[in-house]
Amino acid sequence: MGEVVHMIDSEVFLAFSTYATIVILKMMLMGPITSYHRLTKKVFSNMEDTALGGPAEDRKKLIRVDPDVERVRRCHQNDLENIIPFVVIGLLYALTGPDLSTALLHFRFFVGSRCLHTVAYLLPLPQPSRALAWMVGMVTTFSMAYRVLTTALFL
Amino acid sequence: MGEVVHMIDSEVFLAFSTYATIVILKMMLMGPITSYHRLTKKVFSNMEDTALGGPAEDRKKLIRVDPDVERVRRCHQNDLENIIPFVVIGLLYALTGPDLSTALLHFRFFVGSRCLHTVAYLLPLPQPSRALAWMVGMVTTFSMAYRVLTTALFL
Amino acid sequence: MGEVVHMIDSEVFLAFSTYATIVILKMMLMGPITSYHRLTKKVFSNMEDTALGGPAEDRKKLIRVDPDVERVRRCHQNDLENIIPFVVIGLLYALTGPDLSTALLHFRFFVGSRCLHTVAYLLPLPQPSRALAWMVGMVTTFSMAYRVLTTALFL
Repeated sequence: MGEVVHMIDSEVFLAFSTYATIVILKMMLMGPITSYHRLTKKVFSNMEDTALGGPAEDRKKLIRVDPDVERVRRCHQNDLENIIPFVVIGLLYALTGPDLSTALLHFRFFVGSRCLHTVAYLLPLPQPSRALAWMVGMVTTFSMAYRVLTTALFL
Repeated sequence: MGEVVHMIDSEVFLAFSTYATIVILKMMLMGPITSYHRLTKKVFSNMEDTALGGPAEDRKKLIRVDPDVERVRRCHQNDLENIIPFVVIGLLYALTGPDLSTALLHFRFFVGSRCLHTVAYLLPLPQPSRALAWMVGMVTTFSMAYRVLTTALFL
Repeated sequence: MGEVVHMIDSEVFLAFSTYATIVILKMMLMGPITSYHRLTKKVFSNMEDTALGGPAEDRKKLIRVDPDVERVRRCHQNDLENIIPFVVIGLLYALTGPDLSTALLHFRFFVGSRCLHTVAYLLPLPQPSRALAWMVGMVTTFSMAYRVLTTALFL
């Protein structure tokens, strides 16, 4: 691990920065999509938000649960549960000095699988498309974690 | 990006460390606030927790949903969805060597907006105070992501 | 903080990489555990998932909430709320150049407490075992945040 300082200037680290930023931006997009459904369908969680949803009478009825909103929220939650581990383990992985081509393969598979996962969740596509996309992301992250633990193990 | 190694010793990186730590501590505070509401109002999610809430009879009734607890939990969830992207993108941004004053502007706006967001959510303040605070945080993070992608793009 | 670049090659950083990877893998395990309960108990959130759960009649009845699934999901959520702050603050802490033995103490206490937390949540063990495990993790992270803010404060 003597070459770690060198790694932070490397193309692998640049590639990690690029793909991590893209996949985090994709995750952040789920917030506005949730807001869009809340505002267009007038479905809110907080009394103070109902004023944005239209005229004031019957505001209490707007505090409700909607299947479309919940679907986006589940997708967002799944992003949190999978993209954050990718970013953490991917950063450590990038510092272990992998081959550029191997690293790009991991980053591209992960980001591609999460984009597919979002499409499969929101349309929705029939299963097992979403399950497979989720699994590809998991396997990619496990593969990077394996390299981190085999090159940097210090318990 | 040749100066990245230098950046990790820079004042920008120190500033990032400081603001990231502060905003993460703010996020962690939501856990104890949730516990406080659960214990004072005796609202639990798990049967094994009800023993902490008082005498043992009618414990099943304590497994319920409370608007105050749910409000804190939604605020915590919104923190997870916004503060974590800030930390990831802010770290990469700090490594791209921005001007110290520009970087401080981003970090201060973000941390300030998230503190306002929490106050606006928990009191609650009338809208659009919370919506605006949320939007300022999003824009700050997008602005940093733009710089990361324009200075470090490697696909 | 002049020795930061040196720190990223240090044993403290290797130890951080190892423990962060282990605790993130533990967190990722909650996803498959949720899936396991969903598939064996046939409890789903999405109509398109019910096809995996068995024959097609009465599929709508499979869209429901189950206490075991919700328990795993709450545990997963608590992991997100606690493990991610540990990873962020732990990374910055590792760059402040702490003693190896002090750093190992923090990392081991945190990872140990979160493993106990998961066991206490999923079995479940009687309280206050889970509350204590949660608190040890919080205190460990606060202790590292204290060092980050006292050695790297730059507002």
